Amino acid sequence: GEEDGDEREATPLWQSAVLFALAVLVIQGQVFFVSCAINLGLRHLILPKGIAYEKEFQPDYQQPNPVAYVPILEDNYLTSGQLLHKLEDARGLLVQDGSYFDVWLKLSLPYSSTNENLFQVQVDLLALNSTTVFTARRACLMRRQNSLLRHAKLVAFAPLYVLGLLKDGEETLYFPVVSKFRQGSITGVGDTKVSQLRVSLLPQRGRDPPEVYGAAAHVLVKLSYLQHFLYHYPVTSFVTLSCGLAVGLNVLLLGIIVAIVLAFLFGGPALEQDDGDGEGAS
Amino acid sequence: GEEDGDEREATPLWQSAVLFALAVLVIQGQVFFVSCAINLGLRHLILPKGIAYEKEFQPDYQQPNPVAYVPILEDNYLTSGQLLHKLEDARGLLVQDGSYFDVWLKLSLPYSSTNENLFQVQVDLLALNSTTVFTARRACLMRRQNSLLRHAKLVAFAPLYVLGLLKDGEETLYFPVVSKFRQGSITGVGDTKVSQLRVSLLPQRGRDPPEVYGAAAHVLVKLSYLQHFLYHYPVTSFVTLSCGLAVGLNVLLLGIIVAIVLAFLFGGPALEQDDGDGEGAS
Amino acid sequence: GEEDGDEREATPLWQSAVLFALAVLVIQGQVFFVSCAINLGLRHLILPKGIAYEKEFQPDYQQPNPVAYVPILEDNYLTSGQLLHKLEDARGLLVQDGSYFDVWLKLSLPYSSTNENLFQVQVDLLALNSTTVFTARRACLMRRQNSLLRHAKLVAFAPLYVLGLLKDGEETLYFPVVSKFRQGSITGVGDTKVSQLRVSLLPQRGRDPPEVYGAAAHVLVKLSYLQHFLYHYPVTSFVTLSCGLAVGLNVLLLGIIVAIVLAFLFGGPALEQDDGDGEGAS
Repeated sequence: GEEDGDEREATPLWQSAVLFALAVLVIQGQVFFVSCAINLGLRHLILPKGIAYEKEFQPDYQQPNPVAYVPILEDNYLTSGQLLHKLEDARGLLVQDGSYFDVWLKLSLPYSSTNENLFQVQVDLLALNSTTVFTARRACLMRRQNSLLRHAKLVAFAPLYVLGLLKDGEETLYFPVVSKFRQGSITGVGDTKVSQLRVSLLPQRGRDPPEVYGAAAHVLVKLSYLQHFLYHYPVTSFVTLSCGLAVGLNVLLLGIIVAIVLAFLFGGPALEQDDGDGEGAS
Repeated sequence: GEEDGDEREATPLWQSAVLFALAVLVIQGQVFFVSCAINLGLRHLILPKGIAYEKEFQPDYQQPNPVAYVPILEDNYLTSGQLLHKLEDARGLLVQDGSYFDVWLKLSLPYSSTNENLFQVQVDLLALNSTTVFTARRACLMRRQNSLLRHAKLVAFAPLYVLGLLKDGEETLYFPVVSKFRQGSITGVGDTKVSQLRVSLLPQRGRDPPEVYGAAAHVLVKLSYLQHFLYHYPVTSFVTLSCGLAVGLNVLLLGIIVAIVLAFLFGGPALEQDDGDGEGAS
Repeated sequence: GEEDGDEREATPLWQSAVLFALAVLVIQGQVFFVSCAINLGLRHLILPKGIAYEKEFQPDYQQPNPVAYVPILEDNYLTSGQLLHKLEDARGLLVQDGSYFDVWLKLSLPYSSTNENLFQVQVDLLALNSTTVFTARRACLMRRQNSLLRHAKLVAFAPLYVLGLLKDGEETLYFPVVSKFRQGSITGVGDTKVSQLRVSLLPQRGRDPPEVYGAAAHVLVKLSYLQHFLYHYPVTSFVTLSCGLAVGLNVLLLGIIVAIVLAFLFGGPALEQDDGDGEGAS
């Protein structure tokens, strides 16, 4: 319909413009949905089930230092997330022997006076017989909030805060504690298959332990750089990949259109000239 | 199209001006990209892998003074960044015997009341057998924040702060602690190959230790003055080098254009004169 | 083009004025650059390497009073700026026997409550065998800041402060402590070659030691009055010398122009008279 309009002289310019803009919007919308769909499919291929486990845990504040045990076992060996009896063999372990794995922690904390102080998180990797195989500590410190900045954010994103989609006065810390640990790798020690994490929250001497809204441990098996990027930066990677796919699809579409136009330009007149020049050739 | 327009007298001046400005913009954009590309290539050549190592570390606040051990070894001798057993020989050391190296520290600290006080950082260089080979101390003091200046900054860069691209209330200290230390160089002492750093944060007597968001040690092997400038001042050096390269490329382009114009001026009339003077020569 | 315009009577006055102003600007710009270049050359001649040494030092705040040891030795006798073993002989000393030297200190301090109090700096000159040869004390007191003046400054230079080019809340003290001390000069004592400075920051009784951003000792060998002025007042002396040189160059240029004009005035009519008087002379 658009090409017919260009040929007829009576059609006003704005009609063509509106039709053109509409066509572009429709095509770009379809391109966007297709690229998002491809993106989701790629994520499932690149990040298959069985390489990343998210385990929520509840630190026990009755202990001197809040501590939580996080079994890294399949669910059917656990009772409501707890390991009630000792394991005899290595069946049910989420991380296979010889695999490398990372441990990341995610903590949600309120901006309270006890949380203003620096605290430490200690992760112990426990073997099947509950002995500690490896220990790593990390210091955690919440960002100081500037009240001017905080209120500017509240005003800027007011609707989201009112609807409860954004939370005020909470910070989520997400950080690696163990990286590239090899299951059963310690030399000179016997059976060191890691079956549990023990996560302790250590305040500084004479201070109260930090208060958390929620906590989770992420156990990640053999992540490549691409998997690492897709897993730990989900929003950034999704936007990047979708934009890249949309651009790629547009380039593909433009190439097809250019090829068709070129075929018309070179093929069309040539046929007409063939008709004019010599009819014996056809 | 530009040259045709100059020849026809009817072309208005502003069209030529627009075309000229466009051509200049396009050429300068290309010059800019080429100079950035050359810049990146030069950086890779001048700062090769193997002269600079950045090692993040986590001070342990459960000690009387927060302390961290930073192995300067290749990653495959470490378990999740830690050295679990003593080394017997000097394999895997990042700094070869007889090489000179510097140690710089980078600390990110919040503007909190405990950090207002001056504190010291002590770096001990530990030999293979964990004895201390060399000790250096440095005093650290955060800048006092003027609240007027701070809020002026917040208002000036408000969108960046709201989106979380700039962090408020944080200062990053970056300073040298050890400079030009020769691996295995202490005279009168036996085997002094440095395999670990011990970094301690020392508060003044009776004060709380400083709180850090993050900390990293930079171990730099044999930096020349140019490498030193490129490594420690990345933004300044990148801008300087790119501008210099862009100016150089422009001078080169102008020289080529002048040479072509000169060739036309001296070659063109000469050919015409040749045509006029004697046609037997051609 | 200028001379052609002067000869034709039709050229308007403002064109001549613009051309004249342009010529003056170009000539003065060249005079300025030449005088700066001569200034830098003179500085290198007047302040040669080997008469002034700047040694940064780090007071150790773990001591009851912060103290730092500053070796005045060549760098190849030091390990990362520290003297690790005692010297046996006087080789490597920066100050030769019989030379006179001064010691100036430069301290950068924040306007904090501990720094509001007066404190003292003590410099001990230590001989090769670490005995104290000479001791000098100086009282230091930071200027009280007037908050109105401070904020006026902040507002006046706001862009420089926001971009981090100017630092707020810092004062730099620069003062002499030892002046015209003769190397090895104490009568009645044996070998007294000074090889180290010990710099102590002494607070008043029962007060906290002052906090410093940075500190440096300047050791200056045999400065004449001109060298003294050039070294201790670099900005003032540079501006003064450059202005003086620019004035001198202008006087020189004017003299040359006057000489040429005079030569024309007296030589030109003389030639014309020669033409009129007797043509046989030429």
